[in-house]
Amino acid sequence: LLAFSGVQGARIRTVVVGLGPIGLAAARFALERPSLDLVAAVDLDPARQGRDLGELLDWPPAGLLVEPDAEAALARHQPDVAILCTASQLPPMMPLLLACARAGVDVVSSCEELLLPDLRHPDLAAELDAAARAGGATILGTGVNPGFVLDFLPVAASGVCREVRSVRARRVVDAATRRLPLQRKVGAGITGEEFAARAAAGTIGHVGIRESAALVARALGWGPEAVEEDLEPVIADRRMETEHLVVEAGRVAGIRNRARALASDLVVVELDLAMYVGAPDPGDEIDLDADPPVSLRLQGGVPGDRATAAILVNSVRQVAAAPPGVTTVVDLPPPRPMR
Amino acid sequence: LLAFSGVQGARIRTVVVGLGPIGLAAARFALERPSLDLVAAVDLDPARQGRDLGELLDWPPAGLLVEPDAEAALARHQPDVAILCTASQLPPMMPLLLACARAGVDVVSSCEELLLPDLRHPDLAAELDAAARAGGATILGTGVNPGFVLDFLPVAASGVCREVRSVRARRVVDAATRRLPLQRKVGAGITGEEFAARAAAGTIGHVGIRESAALVARALGWGPEAVEEDLEPVIADRRMETEHLVVEAGRVAGIRNRARALASDLVVVELDLAMYVGAPDPGDEIDLDADPPVSLRLQGGVPGDRATAAILVNSVRQVAAAPPGVTTVVDLPPPRPMR
Repeated sequence: LLAFSGVQGARIRTVVVGLGPIGLAAARFALERPSLDLVAAVDLDPARQGRDLGELLDWPPAGLLVEPDAEAALARHQPDVAILCTASQLPPMMPLLLACARAGVDVVSSCEELLLPDLRHPDLAAELDAAARAGGATILGTGVNPGFVLDFLPVAASGVCREVRSVRARRVVDAATRRLPLQRKVGAGITGEEFAARAAAGTIGHVGIRESAALVARALGWGPEAVEEDLEPVIADRRMETEHLVVEAGRVAGIRNRARALASDLVVVELDLAMYVGAPDPGDEIDLDADPPVSLRLQGGVPGDRATAAILVNSVRQVAAAPPGVTTVVDLPPPRPMR
Repeated sequence: LLAFSGVQGARIRTVVVGLGPIGLAAARFALERPSLDLVAAVDLDPARQGRDLGELLDWPPAGLLVEPDAEAALARHQPDVAILCTASQLPPMMPLLLACARAGVDVVSSCEELLLPDLRHPDLAAELDAAARAGGATILGTGVNPGFVLDFLPVAASGVCREVRSVRARRVVDAATRRLPLQRKVGAGITGEEFAARAAAGTIGHVGIRESAALVARALGWGPEAVEEDLEPVIADRRMETEHLVVEAGRVAGIRNRARALASDLVVVELDLAMYVGAPDPGDEIDLDADPPVSLRLQGGVPGDRATAAILVNSVRQVAAAPPGVTTVVDLPPPRPMR
């Protein structure tokens, strides 16, 4: 009767594109959820194509064979929503995003730059927004980081504040507890020189902290005028071993990645991400210098991959109900795991 | 350009009805905020009527004289949004809510039962929802509790979970740090017999914990089938003095108020509110038994009145942009203090 979200509608026809660790987990969670109807799974890797999705999940057959072509899958299955887990940068995503937008297929994506696409790519973002409005599609980038701990949560916490002067958030991840690709992504085990070379080439580290800082600043009405980012290696002070690799003393254990948003020459948002093997006290901390002040802790932190797959699937219902256009995690009702 | 909430629209014409402590603070925060245009303030108390709002705030003149009649103020000022701070129960609010709904004026209210009005008053809620849809108005009940710590936050925290098995949230408030009406509301200083009598008459304690439990359960797709509530006095084990009153040893120091939502005979939501003089370790705690688990702490807790006034004002922009009907705090984008 009422406009409460407890009321469920029809099952939402969903496709997943990109069956890496996050996309595969998202496909599994979508299969588990009665309110979603997973109608297709797509991957570019020929080794996965034609196989039953259940096989990739170590599950019984799911009755869905992995397809090779995302645009053909959109045309064939006419989904309501596409979960896209293919790239971190916006430019390589554009053809598929535009195809979804034009077909009126809502998008939830783990693409980090899509959290706030106009920050680095204003022209592409404008083109995508226009296509989405014209086609009647909602486009969202989300995840745990970016998408939740360093952006959605600080903004959500500010709801009880009369005024916020500045936002500080800090995320500490012990990379030893995470999968090998993440350990590689943060440079665990390499030398300082190699780190410097890869950092200069932009092939190491985390994408999205700059987007998070800018999104928080914008959500609180600060513009911002500038966003600064820096990336440093954390050097191991002792030999450490993970399930996947060894970090010798003096080698890189991981990264420290910080971003600051400035408005009127003041730092209004300061984000600090530490992801390295052996990081002590993992967890997420959010502090608002505000009236009243708010200090929030997520004990132990939110684990990345599994939680990112969950928030992608949890956001399907939100984009399906939202008005068309490019949107953000702070412009939608909070996602949750409705059955 | 894009549909991001950083983009501001025209100033929102706002009225405040009910100038008790929360309504007065909301009026002050609305006056301070450039994006809102406070066009009227209304109160039933003849001692306030005709006085300049600035005088009530110990401020310079605001150029707004307190008006006696809310419906006349709606007709005269044609506001976009009304902030209503007049009652905790839905029935006495209905005439004004219906007047707003019919006039197409969106509502943000601290009325605790309005958090989830169909829980105790399904017929009134249906009537209000129909009027709001017909008139093009959005109706929201919010605040800190209910509205944020024991309902919005647990639901927001679940965004990163694949599955939630149960939600536990606990709020501890040291009533000694709060204003006299709250100390009275929790029975500080009265005898156990008096507490029992007032509890039986329904004239003591907090309104809204039952609504919070049901809203969380519904937002997570649990129904619920039943909501149970209990209220107990907390007895002082020593003499305590606040700024406003004295609690002798053996007298009531305040309340412990719990609610449980059940689905399939399991307790899926368990909320625990302790508000008493001398309560140790004030703060808010949310724990999701979930995959992955989430454990969230608000250190020191969110103070009630000031934060409630803030969230009312922060929600004005959200109701102004939302589709018509009765809605809830988990069905809107998170409010925040945009300038």
